Amino acid sequence: MTSKPNKRPLQSDPNHWVAVDIMGGDQGPVLALEACARALHKHPKLHLILVGDQAVSAPAVSSGALSAYTSRIQVAHASEAVAMDEDPVHALRHKKDSSMRVMAQLVADGHAASCVSAGNTGALVAITKYVLKTLPGVTRPGLMALVPTKQDKNARMIDLGANLALVSDQYVQFALMTGTLAAQVDGIANPRIGLLNVGSEEMKGSPAIKEADVALREASARAQFDYIGFVEGGDVYGGDVDVVLCDGFVGNIALKIAEGTARLVSDYTRKQFTRSFWRKCIGLMAKPIFADVKAYLDPSSRNGANLLGLRGIVIKSHGGCDVAGFVFAIDRAYAQGALGLTAQVQAALAEHYHISSSS
Amino acid sequence: MTSKPNKRPLQSDPNHWVAVDIMGGDQGPVLALEACARALHKHPKLHLILVGDQAVSAPAVSSGALSAYTSRIQVAHASEAVAMDEDPVHALRHKKDSSMRVMAQLVADGHAASCVSAGNTGALVAITKYVLKTLPGVTRPGLMALVPTKQDKNARMIDLGANLALVSDQYVQFALMTGTLAAQVDGIANPRIGLLNVGSEEMKGSPAIKEADVALREASARAQFDYIGFVEGGDVYGGDVDVVLCDGFVGNIALKIAEGTARLVSDYTRKQFTRSFWRKCIGLMAKPIFADVKAYLDPSSRNGANLLGLRGIVIKSHGGCDVAGFVFAIDRAYAQGALGLTAQVQAALAEHYHISSSS
Repeated sequence: MTSKPNKRPLQSDPNHWVAVDIMGGDQGPVLALEACARALHKHPKLHLILVGDQAVSAPAVSSGALSAYTSRIQVAHASEAVAMDEDPVHALRHKKDSSMRVMAQLVADGHAASCVSAGNTGALVAITKYVLKTLPGVTRPGLMALVPTKQDKNARMIDLGANLALVSDQYVQFALMTGTLAAQVDGIANPRIGLLNVGSEEMKGSPAIKEADVALREASARAQFDYIGFVEGGDVYGGDVDVVLCDGFVGNIALKIAEGTARLVSDYTRKQFTRSFWRKCIGLMAKPIFADVKAYLDPSSRNGANLLGLRGIVIKSHGGCDVAGFVFAIDRAYAQGALGLTAQVQAALAEHYHISSSS
Repeated sequence: MTSKPNKRPLQSDPNHWVAVDIMGGDQGPVLALEACARALHKHPKLHLILVGDQAVSAPAVSSGALSAYTSRIQVAHASEAVAMDEDPVHALRHKKDSSMRVMAQLVADGHAASCVSAGNTGALVAITKYVLKTLPGVTRPGLMALVPTKQDKNARMIDLGANLALVSDQYVQFALMTGTLAAQVDGIANPRIGLLNVGSEEMKGSPAIKEADVALREASARAQFDYIGFVEGGDVYGGDVDVVLCDGFVGNIALKIAEGTARLVSDYTRKQFTRSFWRKCIGLMAKPIFADVKAYLDPSSRNGANLLGLRGIVIKSHGGCDVAGFVFAIDRAYAQGALGLTAQVQAALAEHYHISSSS
């Protein structure tokens, strides 16, 4: 059973509360708890609910790095944890006291505006969708992540794996939601939104993509986003598009191809600097330069994918990220909660779909 | 009208003849002709048919670098050229004397075993498919390219854009054909063939991908290829898979995402070496190292995509490649022709589909 975090009344706006699943990720609670301490140090108004095995979280709060922030911490016990390779449906049906489920419930109950988990992605999608429900106008949530561009600013890609295929209106929903996030959280005045397609040289795209293009053109004419049409794989990194729309099948493969390519280039470059004594010397001198490159490419520096479309902010931290990456994911959750992103996304959807605000 | 290249009887096995479309590509005939001269210098048994505007090719053969190889050159005139941005259907229907069409006809008529064009990809697919026809057992041709891996050997990806969507049996056809190419041309004893899918963490793939998986398992049980199951985007570069199967929509986007990522990493790294006088000095010393990295990543070093499944070898050179890249594409065409790849692919398909050899 869940030990409710509301034994003590909240001393702060719920928008400043982030519920963190400390049981997820490849490295488990130790990394998550260290990240929580660092995030609390970084943001004086941040409040955290640590969700997971109380036998782990309680001692961590009473001693260690977290003990300096007890006034801004609550502990929520969850007797179970979802395994990284567990079937999402099994996790949803049979682990009703999992840290992920308790975390989502805390957001549903208004104890926190946002939550962060580094656990099993499929289970997180299934559980948060079940517990939080979708916002009015949204068919299914979409997974959105930041990707680097050559213009020293990030682009956003959605969907990265929550939905294998999309119908036209889902592209419009993702455009509305990600456009709102880009504008409100990342400060981009008129986010440019593109639809990922194959090179016009080869062919003009599948029927589904052509339909989505028509729907996006119609929607952008009456909504506050700037649809720029088709973009190709190479355009994602150009910096001229702020939001790249694709289905989860293509998005997931594209993301992993990009990570694989970046690793290949980095590894090969590093290897070339070890091929002779002289090259090793140059490599030694170039070390700080490569540290800069590594920092730039480090997925940790953009960690924290949004599961957009739910009645609350859900951030998926990469299962294999380091402490800095987990901190960044908490940063994202906190910033989005504090800015009231869910209400803003809801308003954008309501305006577009003519949904009355009472719904 | 075409001036036939068979005024002079062929003095060599047609398998040593490559027909080259000199009109394609972003830079046109000058680059193509220079590449032809270099390829002839490199391969003493290579014979070329230069296809395109005779007013350009004839003077180039009678003087300049090509004049040293006149005994191994024939010129085939084509009065038209397909524009890089021309609609493929228009090119197929209305440019019956295009260099691309004449080139394909030379292969169809047995004057050359292979051909190379750097022109409009869509038009090349449409024209060569129309002129050469598919091999028995093949539904539609697929575009296959080499991609680098961290194990200092290439992987092969198919399809990169010739077919937006594939049915199960097309995956099997592509597996058979690319497996044969990997074994016969690239010397890989038992090519490992994988099917590109999303991370098992997220979901298990679309119905189409699951069906293809079943078909590939069945086919590999009776064919001479080793199907290893699903691979993720990141596995493409690991070197543990020799052939990656995907539909043309995903493949085209993946290829362009990979190129974009490699460019992003290279550009950012280069920029870091210019940020101070000291860094510029290190960059100067590291110049030969970066030249090695550039050479490794250079798409020219793997240029020449195969359009597999036709009654003849068709190589698509990248429209923007340099002379070295075009030479590599001719190398590929020549090697595949000399090895009799078309007959070997045909035999593999015939065995699998129980097609009698007379068909």
